Amino acid sequence: MLIDALQCGNFDREVFEELKAGGFTCVTPTLGFWEGTLESLDELGRWRDREREYPDLIKIVRKAEDIRAAEREGKVGVLLGYQNTNLLEDRIAYVELFADLGVRVLQLTYNNQNELGGSCYEEHDSGLARFGREVVREMNRTGIVIDCSHVGDKTTLDVIEYSQKPVAITHANADSLFPHKRNKTDPVLKALSQTGGVIGCAAYRNITPADACATVDAWCEMVARTVEIAGIDHVGLGTDYSHKTGPNHLDWMRKGRWTRGVQYGAGSAAVPGKVAKPDWLVNIGALNSVEGGLRRVGFDEGDIAKIMGGNWLRLYEDVFG
Amino acid sequence: MLIDALQCGNFDREVFEELKAGGFTCVTPTLGFWEGTLESLDELGRWRDREREYPDLIKIVRKAEDIRAAEREGKVGVLLGYQNTNLLEDRIAYVELFADLGVRVLQLTYNNQNELGGSCYEEHDSGLARFGREVVREMNRTGIVIDCSHVGDKTTLDVIEYSQKPVAITHANADSLFPHKRNKTDPVLKALSQTGGVIGCAAYRNITPADACATVDAWCEMVARTVEIAGIDHVGLGTDYSHKTGPNHLDWMRKGRWTRGVQYGAGSAAVPGKVAKPDWLVNIGALNSVEGGLRRVGFDEGDIAKIMGGNWLRLYEDVFG
Repeated sequence: MLIDALQCGNFDREVFEELKAGGFTCVTPTLGFWEGTLESLDELGRWRDREREYPDLIKIVRKAEDIRAAEREGKVGVLLGYQNTNLLEDRIAYVELFADLGVRVLQLTYNNQNELGGSCYEEHDSGLARFGREVVREMNRTGIVIDCSHVGDKTTLDVIEYSQKPVAITHANADSLFPHKRNKTDPVLKALSQTGGVIGCAAYRNITPADACATVDAWCEMVARTVEIAGIDHVGLGTDYSHKTGPNHLDWMRKGRWTRGVQYGAGSAAVPGKVAKPDWLVNIGALNSVEGGLRRVGFDEGDIAKIMGGNWLRLYEDVFG
Repeated sequence: MLIDALQCGNFDREVFEELKAGGFTCVTPTLGFWEGTLESLDELGRWRDREREYPDLIKIVRKAEDIRAAEREGKVGVLLGYQNTNLLEDRIAYVELFADLGVRVLQLTYNNQNELGGSCYEEHDSGLARFGREVVREMNRTGIVIDCSHVGDKTTLDVIEYSQKPVAITHANADSLFPHKRNKTDPVLKALSQTGGVIGCAAYRNITPADACATVDAWCEMVARTVEIAGIDHVGLGTDYSHKTGPNHLDWMRKGRWTRGVQYGAGSAAVPGKVAKPDWLVNIGALNSVEGGLRRVGFDEGDIAKIMGGNWLRLYEDVFG
């Protein structure tokens, strides 16, 4: 089993064939960053079209059992997720409607504060706000994974405390291993794991140590250090791998429609543009090389299975019911 | 001149006749609380229809000079404003578009935190957030009054510091005179006045001292105490008077679509529903009795003119350019 809790970019037949050949059991693509309700429904429609167009390659999954079925059928399970909650347009009722339509992962905030809480890039993190509390409980009730990857630390800690279900950090690394606003402090990772949550280790160069971008073994060493912080049952994969994107996509992610100014996102003035994929993960199909890397850095077969997908599957079962 | 910087509710011929008979020069009605872009445009359209239907009574104003013209023509000037920024739907470009359509006042947040900043009812006020900074500067550029009435204290102080134009608190009272989350602390009022801003004293029972609801003279005493805090050039009227509303309107204001739970807004479990108008302001036409009240509590004619409308007109000139 191989589960990647976060990818983004443009998905087409070539990508799906690469994912299938790479042995992926389940992938969460990013269906949106800043889009409102209608635009988000449009993207849902496009994924239904893709499923109809490539029935030999992919299968939209709604339950943990669907993921096991996809594995048996040799298809890549697609778990539908968005990196923001703009699709709700402040309506509590829309959580249930999007859940009914198959949405299974929502990141509470992307790079900016919103009605729910604070983002990792805001100067001050509000913590979980009034509407955020409403949405967290409704996501618990309707079986949607709460993703705090880009969410601020204070809001993330509030969510972990307030949520009745385990919380996900689908794509980030440990801040103590690579200090960055997008990465998570040890207190956050410990609170996450104490309540059954899972962090997906990222392979996005802007938030990943240089050595861990150089070789798969060094990346697996980083995973091992993350396991030391969060525990073996609470670490998985969340590459943040972006398929077939260019500067326009990067601009959309960073600037949306909210600013006319320059925004570096996870980059910086020194690293303003698109960064190279990790040397060992130029093609997403190479992600299965992590299995051997984890073995070489000392994990046993049971632990490897947890990291490669078992931990995500357990969290999905907890949340989807 | 008589300017009321904030009213809400349902406006019809009867209301406009009452405003005209009451000597109102300019009123800012509330065009929306939680509405998104399209719903907000709908309400703009309805106000254009009202202007066409009642050309003898009202005139939509866009400049300070329009307000003076309305006064000469014996019409009530209508300054278009919203009590939230949901109409932007996270697009910086929409500030200019709504300005072009005649919108002249936007409250940055209503009762909940949003992408711009924190509200007075949130447990933690984020301060002015990333998108909030963008919007403040764009409102400065396009000539829209920044209203912080329901905005949290920290965000309000940030806005006052960051804005290049004077800021408005269109409808609130001094917290030191009547402690309430909706009212403003002395440090906020002093920062407001030091940068040329204006507070509109409110006559909404939930945020107004009991004696100031009993008699116009006591309300004018409250205005005099507010002038002691903010200065004679920085206090005006902002009644928060609501026309022809019932429990559905109150529910919409307090709950919008963001919660299924109970929300008291400015009320409380002890005062859960609609409250009575002040005894001296059962009918909005009685607002002109404030002029005599101000005289009786000791203001001279120049000061009375400032409070009755002159201070708002100066702020409008500063902001509209």
